[in-house]
Amino acid sequence: MSDSVGIAQAQRASFDVPLKFQSGATLPRYDMMYETYGTLNAAKSNAILICHALSGHHHVAGTYADQPKNIGWWDNMVGPGKPIDTNKFFVIGLNNLGGCHGSTGPSSPNPETGKPYGSSFPIVTVEDWVQAQARLADQLGIRQFAAIIGGSLGGMQAMQWALSFPERVRHVLAIATAPNLTTENIAFNDVARNAILTDPDFHGGDFYQHGAVPTRGLRLARMLGHITYLSDDAMAGKFGRGLRSGEYKYGYDIEFEVESYLRYQGDKFASYFDANTYLLMTKALDYFDPARHTDGNLARAFAPIQADFLVVSFSSDWRFSPDRSREIVKALLHNRRNVSYAEIESRHGHDSFLMQDEQYFAVMRNYLNNVAKEVA
Amino acid sequence: MSDSVGIAQAQRASFDVPLKFQSGATLPRYDMMYETYGTLNAAKSNAILICHALSGHHHVAGTYADQPKNIGWWDNMVGPGKPIDTNKFFVIGLNNLGGCHGSTGPSSPNPETGKPYGSSFPIVTVEDWVQAQARLADQLGIRQFAAIIGGSLGGMQAMQWALSFPERVRHVLAIATAPNLTTENIAFNDVARNAILTDPDFHGGDFYQHGAVPTRGLRLARMLGHITYLSDDAMAGKFGRGLRSGEYKYGYDIEFEVESYLRYQGDKFASYFDANTYLLMTKALDYFDPARHTDGNLARAFAPIQADFLVVSFSSDWRFSPDRSREIVKALLHNRRNVSYAEIESRHGHDSFLMQDEQYFAVMRNYLNNVAKEVA
Repeated sequence: MSDSVGIAQAQRASFDVPLKFQSGATLPRYDMMYETYGTLNAAKSNAILICHALSGHHHVAGTYADQPKNIGWWDNMVGPGKPIDTNKFFVIGLNNLGGCHGSTGPSSPNPETGKPYGSSFPIVTVEDWVQAQARLADQLGIRQFAAIIGGSLGGMQAMQWALSFPERVRHVLAIATAPNLTTENIAFNDVARNAILTDPDFHGGDFYQHGAVPTRGLRLARMLGHITYLSDDAMAGKFGRGLRSGEYKYGYDIEFEVESYLRYQGDKFASYFDANTYLLMTKALDYFDPARHTDGNLARAFAPIQADFLVVSFSSDWRFSPDRSREIVKALLHNRRNVSYAEIESRHGHDSFLMQDEQYFAVMRNYLNNVAKEVA
Repeated sequence: MSDSVGIAQAQRASFDVPLKFQSGATLPRYDMMYETYGTLNAAKSNAILICHALSGHHHVAGTYADQPKNIGWWDNMVGPGKPIDTNKFFVIGLNNLGGCHGSTGPSSPNPETGKPYGSSFPIVTVEDWVQAQARLADQLGIRQFAAIIGGSLGGMQAMQWALSFPERVRHVLAIATAPNLTTENIAFNDVARNAILTDPDFHGGDFYQHGAVPTRGLRLARMLGHITYLSDDAMAGKFGRGLRSGEYKYGYDIEFEVESYLRYQGDKFASYFDANTYLLMTKALDYFDPARHTDGNLARAFAPIQADFLVVSFSSDWRFSPDRSREIVKALLHNRRNVSYAEIESRHGHDSFLMQDEQYFAVMRNYLNNVAKEVA
């Protein structure tokens, strides 16, 4: 396709300076996988960083030479002529620390022992990720990003950039995200985590040495996740009360179409995703809370921010509802920042941020066209 | 307390005539536990049946002589002078077939083998329950109920009574219920069921013989259930982002207050509830769908109904939303039935139907006062 970035090349960056985590733990050295699309201009002023959500990674757009069907997770958004236009921007995708797509994480060998880190891998926070991402930016020679973009947990990272490195980001695009998780979201995460933690194959996080994989727990976690990513309406529209065989079977095998969908998604996910990474990612979500240090006052927490913002929410997203985006907008306006806000009508729930939608894409395109003009 | 029914007496009714289930399976004989409060009048016209929801049972009101702290699950609603007034009505609580509180269920010994039924216990539907309840009514000499009352899954049974035995029920009080489960509700049930079904201690439902209990699965199922019984608001109000120790611990033990609550509820439930009963109950919920035989047309499905209805919903109930109650009301009105409808403002989510609320209780009291007048 002419609007694809084409063949992508995953790259590995290595870091030898120890990274200190919020928790107090330290990683002496680590690798990060990343991909880039487009060309960095001479002024190095046209870089965009894409931060991924729970199950994302560095393969944002295009395919691989040896895997022509392995299309990047945000390929509809990133490419030549697409809203995040690789003709104009130098776009970076990366796999976060603690991930399971090549960056150093719990399944990576601990150089001190030769065995996978497992339970000894530090708990990672959004702040930690941003520190690690900043080092990657240093290595690539990027002092300031034209924009940092993310949806959901990715949006939290984009916001954190504006807090941790106010001078290193000109625009934040925070999509389907929130200034912190609601109690209900923490509760869902805790159920998902407990499914993994209590799986007998988890072995306290050191299942690698036992030749085991806590697939039961991961599968349940993902099934539950999928319910919360969709809206009630979207599920009803997609599956209704449809039965696989047309009639009740009076047993515990798959009967309703939605059961078939959830179990398939759960099985697929459990076959490749790392259980410790899943745990880490949900903890990072739970912990993110910039107003924690300002008595819950988000406006005060946002005082250091210099970036301009585009905030996008989706009407049917009950996990990161428009109300939560409005909290972000309000706190930014209180600090007299430039903020654009779009609430997109969509029935696809939280997943909307990954889907093609005319209004959503137009908002992204228009905003980034203006960012591109600053760069040129 | 003067408004308590006082000491209750659980009773056992035995049935020797085989019961044929919707699934085609048959139970040759079975027992049902029940309790009664108040006095059956000479005309036997003042009986009220209370149908229980997922984890309920026959102990609806009062305490036991040897367990003074074991208060019935709807004690705030049922008693002398209370909305379901035992000075006026003869109130029956029962434990449904398939339950785990004394009625014949999966954990009961199969008389043919001497071992617990386990996986061989039939899948039960709301229709089956109503058939079994009707036999109990026969045994008690009750030809027609003044009212049948239930919340959630109990409301489905109350509706089914009006469908299966139109002449045997004068009033249905259907509270926080729905004409069928939404796709999302089926999905949540499937995750809960899968937590149990994939617990290695489940042993295909025959864990009794293995000296095992699938507590991990039950615990997860209950944790998830609790999230859906509450509203987002109620959870936020009750727990917020409160931390048990006041600071982040960077580990997987309990940190947030809501985690402590969920795990406690999960552990408690898993310590006494039967896993097979849990599975059965969720299946009965999934299957209930009176419009299934009328091409989804609820008005046509409701044509046989003769009873008057009180339908009650709660504003913050996202599991059985007011919209679903309005579907019931509409279908009844289409059939020119007498319907009263109350939508109660409440922030407690689905659990509201079990909680004391002035407006809710006034609606129940007023409606049942009029029912009492017919009886007198």
